[in-house]
Amino acid sequence: MAIHEECGVFGIFGNKRTNVAHLTYYGLYSLQHRGQESCGIVVNDDGVFDVRKGQGLVGEVFTDDVLSSMPQGNAAIGHVRYSTTGAGTIANCQPLIVNHIKGKLAVAHNGNLTNALPLRDELEMNGAIFHSTSDTETICYMIIRERLKTRSIEEAVSLGVSYLEGAYSLCIMSAAKMIAVRDPLGLRPLCYGKTADGGYVVASESCGIHAVGGGMIRDIEPGEMLVFSRKDGVWDITVSSMRIAGGVRQRKSCIFEYIYFARPDSVIDGVSVHEARKQAGKLLAIETPVEADVVMGVPDSGIDAAIGYSMESRIPFETGLVKNKYVGRSFIAPGQDLRTDTVRIKLSPIRNVICGKKIVLIDDSIVRGTTIRRIVDMLKDAGAEEIHLRISSPPFRHPCYYGVDIDSEEYLIASHHDESQIAEILGVDSLAFLSTDALGRMIGTRDFCQACFNGDYPTQIPLERGKDRFEKPISFRGDKG
Amino acid sequence: MAIHEECGVFGIFGNKRTNVAHLTYYGLYSLQHRGQESCGIVVNDDGVFDVRKGQGLVGEVFTDDVLSSMPQGNAAIGHVRYSTTGAGTIANCQPLIVNHIKGKLAVAHNGNLTNALPLRDELEMNGAIFHSTSDTETICYMIIRERLKTRSIEEAVSLGVSYLEGAYSLCIMSAAKMIAVRDPLGLRPLCYGKTADGGYVVASESCGIHAVGGGMIRDIEPGEMLVFSRKDGVWDITVSSMRIAGGVRQRKSCIFEYIYFARPDSVIDGVSVHEARKQAGKLLAIETPVEADVVMGVPDSGIDAAIGYSMESRIPFETGLVKNKYVGRSFIAPGQDLRTDTVRIKLSPIRNVICGKKIVLIDDSIVRGTTIRRIVDMLKDAGAEEIHLRISSPPFRHPCYYGVDIDSEEYLIASHHDESQIAEILGVDSLAFLSTDALGRMIGTRDFCQACFNGDYPTQIPLERGKDRFEKPISFRGDKG
Amino acid sequence: MAIHEECGVFGIFGNKRTNVAHLTYYGLYSLQHRGQESCGIVVNDDGVFDVRKGQGLVGEVFTDDVLSSMPQGNAAIGHVRYSTTGAGTIANCQPLIVNHIKGKLAVAHNGNLTNALPLRDELEMNGAIFHSTSDTETICYMIIRERLKTRSIEEAVSLGVSYLEGAYSLCIMSAAKMIAVRDPLGLRPLCYGKTADGGYVVASESCGIHAVGGGMIRDIEPGEMLVFSRKDGVWDITVSSMRIAGGVRQRKSCIFEYIYFARPDSVIDGVSVHEARKQAGKLLAIETPVEADVVMGVPDSGIDAAIGYSMESRIPFETGLVKNKYVGRSFIAPGQDLRTDTVRIKLSPIRNVICGKKIVLIDDSIVRGTTIRRIVDMLKDAGAEEIHLRISSPPFRHPCYYGVDIDSEEYLIASHHDESQIAEILGVDSLAFLSTDALGRMIGTRDFCQACFNGDYPTQIPLERGKDRFEKPISFRGDKG
Amino acid sequence: MAIHEECGVFGIFGNKRTNVAHLTYYGLYSLQHRGQESCGIVVNDDGVFDVRKGQGLVGEVFTDDVLSSMPQGNAAIGHVRYSTTGAGTIANCQPLIVNHIKGKLAVAHNGNLTNALPLRDELEMNGAIFHSTSDTETICYMIIRERLKTRSIEEAVSLGVSYLEGAYSLCIMSAAKMIAVRDPLGLRPLCYGKTADGGYVVASESCGIHAVGGGMIRDIEPGEMLVFSRKDGVWDITVSSMRIAGGVRQRKSCIFEYIYFARPDSVIDGVSVHEARKQAGKLLAIETPVEADVVMGVPDSGIDAAIGYSMESRIPFETGLVKNKYVGRSFIAPGQDLRTDTVRIKLSPIRNVICGKKIVLIDDSIVRGTTIRRIVDMLKDAGAEEIHLRISSPPFRHPCYYGVDIDSEEYLIASHHDESQIAEILGVDSLAFLSTDALGRMIGTRDFCQACFNGDYPTQIPLERGKDRFEKPISFRGDKG
Repeated sequence: MAIHEECGVFGIFGNKRTNVAHLTYYGLYSLQHRGQESCGIVVNDDGVFDVRKGQGLVGEVFTDDVLSSMPQGNAAIGHVRYSTTGAGTIANCQPLIVNHIKGKLAVAHNGNLTNALPLRDELEMNGAIFHSTSDTETICYMIIRERLKTRSIEEAVSLGVSYLEGAYSLCIMSAAKMIAVRDPLGLRPLCYGKTADGGYVVASESCGIHAVGGGMIRDIEPGEMLVFSRKDGVWDITVSSMRIAGGVRQRKSCIFEYIYFARPDSVIDGVSVHEARKQAGKLLAIETPVEADVVMGVPDSGIDAAIGYSMESRIPFETGLVKNKYVGRSFIAPGQDLRTDTVRIKLSPIRNVICGKKIVLIDDSIVRGTTIRRIVDMLKDAGAEEIHLRISSPPFRHPCYYGVDIDSEEYLIASHHDESQIAEILGVDSLAFLSTDALGRMIGTRDFCQACFNGDYPTQIPLERGKDRFEKPISFRGDKG
Repeated sequence: MAIHEECGVFGIFGNKRTNVAHLTYYGLYSLQHRGQESCGIVVNDDGVFDVRKGQGLVGEVFTDDVLSSMPQGNAAIGHVRYSTTGAGTIANCQPLIVNHIKGKLAVAHNGNLTNALPLRDELEMNGAIFHSTSDTETICYMIIRERLKTRSIEEAVSLGVSYLEGAYSLCIMSAAKMIAVRDPLGLRPLCYGKTADGGYVVASESCGIHAVGGGMIRDIEPGEMLVFSRKDGVWDITVSSMRIAGGVRQRKSCIFEYIYFARPDSVIDGVSVHEARKQAGKLLAIETPVEADVVMGVPDSGIDAAIGYSMESRIPFETGLVKNKYVGRSFIAPGQDLRTDTVRIKLSPIRNVICGKKIVLIDDSIVRGTTIRRIVDMLKDAGAEEIHLRISSPPFRHPCYYGVDIDSEEYLIASHHDESQIAEILGVDSLAFLSTDALGRMIGTRDFCQACFNGDYPTQIPLERGKDRFEKPISFRGDKG
Repeated sequence: MAIHEECGVFGIFGNKRTNVAHLTYYGLYSLQHRGQESCGIVVNDDGVFDVRKGQGLVGEVFTDDVLSSMPQGNAAIGHVRYSTTGAGTIANCQPLIVNHIKGKLAVAHNGNLTNALPLRDELEMNGAIFHSTSDTETICYMIIRERLKTRSIEEAVSLGVSYLEGAYSLCIMSAAKMIAVRDPLGLRPLCYGKTADGGYVVASESCGIHAVGGGMIRDIEPGEMLVFSRKDGVWDITVSSMRIAGGVRQRKSCIFEYIYFARPDSVIDGVSVHEARKQAGKLLAIETPVEADVVMGVPDSGIDAAIGYSMESRIPFETGLVKNKYVGRSFIAPGQDLRTDTVRIKLSPIRNVICGKKIVLIDDSIVRGTTIRRIVDMLKDAGAEEIHLRISSPPFRHPCYYGVDIDSEEYLIASHHDESQIAEILGVDSLAFLSTDALGRMIGTRDFCQACFNGDYPTQIPLERGKDRFEKPISFRGDKG
Repeated sequence: MAIHEECGVFGIFGNKRTNVAHLTYYGLYSLQHRGQESCGIVVNDDGVFDVRKGQGLVGEVFTDDVLSSMPQGNAAIGHVRYSTTGAGTIANCQPLIVNHIKGKLAVAHNGNLTNALPLRDELEMNGAIFHSTSDTETICYMIIRERLKTRSIEEAVSLGVSYLEGAYSLCIMSAAKMIAVRDPLGLRPLCYGKTADGGYVVASESCGIHAVGGGMIRDIEPGEMLVFSRKDGVWDITVSSMRIAGGVRQRKSCIFEYIYFARPDSVIDGVSVHEARKQAGKLLAIETPVEADVVMGVPDSGIDAAIGYSMESRIPFETGLVKNKYVGRSFIAPGQDLRTDTVRIKLSPIRNVICGKKIVLIDDSIVRGTTIRRIVDMLKDAGAEEIHLRISSPPFRHPCYYGVDIDSEEYLIASHHDESQIAEILGVDSLAFLSTDALGRMIGTRDFCQACFNGDYPTQIPLERGKDRFEKPISFRGDKG
């Protein structure tokens, strides 16, 4: 619950002038779980770009008025973003649009670079000025720098991204083309599909394609670039697949997409997210069985694994906790003294199901442990006889540099305590995490990044870190004249 | 989904000056499912009433600014309301506050009167003027009329409500007392409890009591009136139970509270809502069994019954449909041509779970049948082999006059078609409703109103009807001078 | 500047179905100076009333969206109101609409009753309940009480208002008629006129009639009631003038309308407001001449009198102070320490005009003296050699009970100091007020109320006072059961 | 009225950490007349920049909440801007903040470049990317490009701006310094002063200095650059004056600042704006005398000249038209058929002053002539016997390229008609404009730009023009890959 994905991208390339803003709106709605802080849509109406961006949920920023003020177009890209920002940092909202010598470019980015700072330094040394503190502006510069020397935007993109290290799933739109790129490690997901009337869709997850009534074609491969283009005056779309320049390709997709981020109805790199979660529950039941009366999941993220646990263990699945669906992102419990009760407003126990029962409680992960502790208290108050906590992922111990905002290491309960200590802190009768071994069986491959569990990073990691690394240093790097 | 409860009430009577506005806010948050159109809180700060009302959800109306602008107090009542209203009809928001010869009165009402029109006519004949079109103003007048002849507010309430027919669960606050009243048929729920520090709480459902950390004492009985009072200068609270004047008492509580309205963690008249729904699922499995691979519920209202069906039938429970939790009350699909796709944005199928499977699909009720039809199509598109639809209530055939806003009879699919016709329209392989016989077994009593299923109303019903019966007639009853 | 008119009323009675909401909007815009806190419009569309009310200026409440959502109609009334109110007291916004046995009534009221409290007590003794704390609700009850016994709404109004004491200019709308009433003393202004296409308009000031392109017919007389009606099915309008029941008629119109409240382009009871102000300036020049280089007025209220003073004295008129037109009603200087500088943001001296000059400075009145003192300082800082302050009205010494919100007596500088003391406090070289004798010459009649200057009230005055007299007593009059 | 200044700039450089945001807010309030579409403030808190920008008036964007969320600081700059923009072009709001290799830079710009397009093309050829379409971003690039080669920010500014042609009054803030620059022609005004506690203030007009309680020191000279700096750890401020690199210096300040834009209490390049306007009125009376009863000005822009005309001609000055001070920028008359009446809502005639009179009517300029024509009609309707229109500037015939948004030439009434034709169109008895000869006498110098009157531009003018010259070409310059 204190872990955040930082972005979702969406793009549509139609074979006629149509309501691409509406379709992108639907796509972003389906990707909303990947970022709730800001969002934006850029419509390409025959080379003229029209953009709307704002802070808030898709439904807040794109009201009826805003949507109906956007033109039809032949292509559009969109973005949802997670990031706590002040009023002034709307500059960081995406997609980013830049004007350059050969036209305009709109870029939507999911991921995080590990070499953004040295790249930025180099660009600034050559006179570049930066409006924002996001990696996306650096990516734009890298592409535009190559654009001057190349004949096509796709060549520029291919060369430009070859300097980038880290995670990047990009959806790029020029006046005439749309380009989708996935980094050589395939850290963040990206897939594409086709709409009923022959247009193409790119999305961070397959649910984005289905949201516009499209059918998925396939995931974009690590290190692959797809170029959607059209001959002048002709509506037929050409799709070309290219390898991006340089770099070693080795799939290292993020395991946490399966565990927590992605929507259960999405299929990423061939594996159903829902099935992966159910499988994690089954593996938990095999690895750490327990005798109990009932299995229940912490809503919503623990439900799928709980169903898996129940299936494997034959212990009945039950709904023991009800989530208040009106408690939104912005809910803040008023009154200092009542702060500890926020969990009670968000979740309520169903006493009849809990009282006198031995319970297997499933959650997807533990970060600080404060919320799960409050839930355990709640179950005990409701009369639970025993509580056996099972976590459908290994313990978090390391920060992520690829676009996931995990709590600082110092707050991670698993960085400082072993399993039995955590069990005691939380007050549960037993506690078990999924083993790292089981992760491979969970999704049927070992080609994934699990650095957050074992510290084994697939790239070099930056010296400075934190999402605001460009925000503060100004006082130290200040122009002293 | 096209059925709406019209209200929820909440009240708190403390034994010291405290943040009663915050507590009422929490209470209303937990009752939000009973009404999403408007809400209000009145704080009683030593006889001075401070009120805030507005259209929207509790979290929208009661922002941090608004809440922190409200004073502390010794008592407060609150209300959530379902009703589509224009800007001008904020006069209909509750609680209603009126000034009368002996002070002020704040009234929150859940339910609907069947004799509001003749009562109002009689009052107007005696010079009464009405600001709103809600039954609540009529109730106020009936009480105040008696107040002039009686020594205490509780006597006035007891006599005043004796003229009312229909459903009313009331929470009333005077300068010095709080009074809770439930109509003699007990049509709408109402219960009370105690907070950790000795105050008393009244709420439409037990979840409201738990939301403020309180413990439930019991349901208020049909025809009972509870008076919470305090001696001057003393903080100790006296609770007196009285029978309201006149009237036959015969429990006829609304069965639909169990089937759909109430929150699963609530316990109403001694029966757990969650258990009742699970029981409905089990009874469905017994009454209309079917061979299948998987049981799934339509989120959120069909999940509990689906778990019950799975338990009884031993067919595995699965999550086959994912609800987009960001699609709120106000979601409107933009673009005329895309309107049919609203369901697709709200619900997504998990293909792996559905494809090639024989499915038992559970929902709580069918109104027009349009949404469930769209869901059935969605499951078929995802590759379902067979779909057996089971509804955990009998077919709707009659309007409700007691505070539930069911679609007009002409749109109710079950008013015009039998089971096999409906199955054909929906395109399912089989369809079954819960029998009316099973309803008694579902909650362990037959003392409930099931007029919406069988047309057997426990009171006389009004000649004119519709929630706007006071809105339009003005042009016909206009003062022609 | 610390004196506030409490209301403005407007009504239109058309001879066809037309955009009466738009016309009322224009009318209210022109009356905005009479009240800036809230406003409202009620449209009568063939007996169906549609109302929009809100807190804020006319342009804030009646946005394009709101206006275009209102229906066309055959009549409408509107209201602007001055009153500092909390969110909850939107109940006090006008026009007030009430439902009674013979229909609906919408009432807009400008003025203040001096016997509201005893009337209200009597009504409450008979079971009346009050939603608001405004006099208007009491007026409604008085009318409706008579309506039950009479054959027409005009009879009811005539009898109902005969019980009222104090100031009331009313615009009343029933399903079929519009009625304008002015109290027997004619304390507040009220006039009527005709639109280009044959409809009738009622407004607090003649500027409201011109705002809709109409021509003024005449002022409504003290104690007169005008009834605008139409035969069923016929569009021709009948206008009948009647005397309201009982009461002595003696014109006592408010002199302060001429001095400060009314718009300079209005003509009230046959006297041009602009001319009256200019005349006040001339009389000041005659009564208290002074040698000076330049005459300037405090914008905007002192400009007209300054022109008059200049004309009479032959001392050149100049613009010495510029008003920042972007500093609105809601401007609050941020930062505690900067509070004294608010005047500096609102007004700026033109140094060239001031430096080294002997200045006659004209303002319309002095209340606390804080603003004028700040202005005097500003002129001195800009190099003024001498400052001779002339006030175009006598000193304020008494509260008003007829709808003007003058500061409490304890803050009125003239209640505690004589002219020479005030001059010393303000730091001016000389100070003179207009004599009370001159007031008669200013408007050519002595039939006006000047109680605020001499304490000679034309009616009995209430024992309790203050605009919130119904707000607080609740704690003392509280229902103790 | 259809002429718009495009910007106002403000900067403060304090000698301690204080509420610079509040002071800048006051400064922008006083410069609001120079731009009402968007505004922004950047606070420099020891090298950390905090920015707030938004569309709307200063009082709308900088609410209490926003202002109080800004930190204290040692320096700040602010900007008000006139420009009609869509939601997406918030990128064009100022001040602009950019990050470069040696720190951050915030830039506020008043004026318009005539060589922005070729400069931009050159920058883009070298890989520059542009986020906005404003000249300000080009200016930033020019400065930063030099910054890489120079030792100080002031050297970089001096060299960078030497490439610019056209009008630019800049307020620039680096981490440690504040720099004010005025172009070599001095087209737009810029001055500086000192606050009571020893800080320095830069503002477009002297009223901005007075708004923060400061005293004016002097105007910044054409081609001058002022650098405000401070030694590390010391609060004493050093102010250095430098000449910007290259360029011919020849004062060509904008005459229209005196005629219309600037606030009357401002003194620009040694001349009081109010006095200049009064002088224009006197010159009009000398050049084109007429016999009349009364002189009146069109509020607010014609009042000062009317006073001058009255002084010279001895014809009494009067207020004949009242402006409705509640009709703001955003007033839109609802209802198609009523559109012609907008002027009637904004301005009202005082009939007594007009009826039967021979009137000299003064306005500052005529653009299309539609508004003045409506005013003339209004005066005639009010009974004016004769109307002699005098315009206190010569006729507009040419576009401005230096930051003034004059209507397109095709709509300028004076481009197509001579004086007598215009008089006939407007329906006045006589019409006269101020002669171009008189302009020199008006401000006592001939060193001003009057290109809008005579087409004599002090710089080369661009081939393409219009403020949106960077908006549209994208479709033609589109990246075709």
